[in-house]
Amino acid sequence: MDEKQTEISTLGEFGLIDHLTKDIKLVNTSSLKGVGDDCAVMEYKDTEVLVSTDMLVEGIHFDLTYVPLKHLGYKAAVVNFSDIYAMNGHPRQITVSLAISKRFTLEHIEQLYSGIRLACEIYGVDLVGGDTTSSRAGLVISITCIGDAPKDRIVYRSGAKDTDLICVSGDLGASYMGLQLLEREKVASAGQKDFVPQFQGKEYLIERQLKPEARRDIIEELEKAGIKPTSMMDISDGLSSELRHICSASNVGCRIYEDRIPIDYQTALMAEELNMNLVTAAMNGGEDYELLFTIPLHMHEEIKKLPGIKVIGHITKPELGCAMITRDGNEMEIRAQGWNPLAATKEETPQ
Amino acid sequence: MDEKQTEISTLGEFGLIDHLTKDIKLVNTSSLKGVGDDCAVMEYKDTEVLVSTDMLVEGIHFDLTYVPLKHLGYKAAVVNFSDIYAMNGHPRQITVSLAISKRFTLEHIEQLYSGIRLACEIYGVDLVGGDTTSSRAGLVISITCIGDAPKDRIVYRSGAKDTDLICVSGDLGASYMGLQLLEREKVASAGQKDFVPQFQGKEYLIERQLKPEARRDIIEELEKAGIKPTSMMDISDGLSSELRHICSASNVGCRIYEDRIPIDYQTALMAEELNMNLVTAAMNGGEDYELLFTIPLHMHEEIKKLPGIKVIGHITKPELGCAMITRDGNEMEIRAQGWNPLAATKEETPQ
Repeated sequence: MDEKQTEISTLGEFGLIDHLTKDIKLVNTSSLKGVGDDCAVMEYKDTEVLVSTDMLVEGIHFDLTYVPLKHLGYKAAVVNFSDIYAMNGHPRQITVSLAISKRFTLEHIEQLYSGIRLACEIYGVDLVGGDTTSSRAGLVISITCIGDAPKDRIVYRSGAKDTDLICVSGDLGASYMGLQLLEREKVASAGQKDFVPQFQGKEYLIERQLKPEARRDIIEELEKAGIKPTSMMDISDGLSSELRHICSASNVGCRIYEDRIPIDYQTALMAEELNMNLVTAAMNGGEDYELLFTIPLHMHEEIKKLPGIKVIGHITKPELGCAMITRDGNEMEIRAQGWNPLAATKEETPQ
Repeated sequence: MDEKQTEISTLGEFGLIDHLTKDIKLVNTSSLKGVGDDCAVMEYKDTEVLVSTDMLVEGIHFDLTYVPLKHLGYKAAVVNFSDIYAMNGHPRQITVSLAISKRFTLEHIEQLYSGIRLACEIYGVDLVGGDTTSSRAGLVISITCIGDAPKDRIVYRSGAKDTDLICVSGDLGASYMGLQLLEREKVASAGQKDFVPQFQGKEYLIERQLKPEARRDIIEELEKAGIKPTSMMDISDGLSSELRHICSASNVGCRIYEDRIPIDYQTALMAEELNMNLVTAAMNGGEDYELLFTIPLHMHEEIKKLPGIKVIGHITKPELGCAMITRDGNEMEIRAQGWNPLAATKEETPQ
């Protein structure tokens, strides 16, 4: 942050947009026209169009004390791709709207954009438009992602059926533990000039929090294996919350097993170190960006062959409700205790 | 604002979204699935897909001292529709992302949404998704609009040719004058309890600023008359700025005539009252949301028959640059002095 710093106002809105987007190449055949007109233009002849949108607000969703701008850009893009994969589709285009306060320079915004563009490159997505304006305080990032899927491949939340198996990709709770760790080191660093944060042996937690990936690989694996989930969503607010969404949209109940919830050993160690409940972190931590999906019972053998996917339970009739079977054999109701961005509101300035 | 007020945190994010979107009906055949999954799903078989996005930030783009929330919602939606019309397309879906600070109650957000939904109803657009989160200070609205147009109907900024006629719909500068008036009355009202603002005879200016409309009617008129513009955009930043965009994208120059610029008499009276330059207001004021477009010279007779459209000049070879012929016959270079949101940055809180 002590490199050359250019005030954004010296470029103006169009100068800034030109600068940030001048060498963008479009890679998807559906992207006909990108940045530079009133609208982006796309062509989707034989597929359905999917649209998802997410807004990230400084001080609510991220803290620039410990989140590098490049990582933030990468994550902001990837969480939108994740929503498209969660419908069994493929992300194709994004638009990026930014509100920037005066403390951000051109170089800061370049870092943010470099993260967004890296994510686009890796996932094969075109940046086709956006809006750049100022804010009175802090940074706001709003990204809309457009994707596609053949009509018969789209998976909604509402298709889960009694006896379906409930599956989860990857592992849960690591991102939340990464956040706890970053917060702890932030507090420890307060007022110290040459503070070195203690992340050894916990790199996975930090990476899951700062640079999550969307599970394109799982979508591709499932397709190759000829498995179409009956319902699916990505885990952004926490497994509990997402399970309840699927059960409510599908009008079913569920049973999952505590000892089947996939947890990385770094997550477990960190929970112990912080004296936190591990299962609570895995169930309610959120920001995992793993896929939660259901498949018909008879596909049990096929799904077992796929690495990185775990069957954690099954769908039931609606009257049985949503519950977890604990290690000691008790049933515990699953309640949506996912992160609520609206309860997290803190007003900083008197209005 | 002294009606019943409900704290948003009592509903939570999903409760709020359910509440705001529960009775939304989809009217476009292209809208397959709206709010309630990871993505909205749309079908665009024989048309191209258009996407535009805009972000509005409290304290930068609007001042809730004099902008009612319902009007704000209406305007936020309409300015996005305007971008789609400016490509000669039709808006079909929007997603709405909000960041809300603690001082906003459920009733406030209902008012904002009622304006958005009214705009959707009038323009036949479906609200299909969004994101609702909190901000630390103030309100941020990010709207993305999706629309369609047959491939051969889309009009870009880049198609203007030498000798084309330059046309403008409606009149210019009124919205800017409305803003000046609102600002003046805000200053005058400071500290007064029963202040009554003086808007008599200036209703048009206030309406243009607070409740602009997108020119769907012009798009439909042009189609009926068999006129396809060679280039087009909507006037959001001011005529000067937009003319330069078209000339630069089309690699042409232009000549417009000061005495041809359409100005309403209320705009003229207000400019005199405030001792401001009328032409500057009309050229650089912005937020007119009128359409600026070019048509081939031979269509002169056809365009003259259409009400509400004025020919203000013509396109030239690029080496002639962009200029306005003043009333006294002088040539004045047109410079983009449109509103620059990034220069307008004011940081309110120390970061």
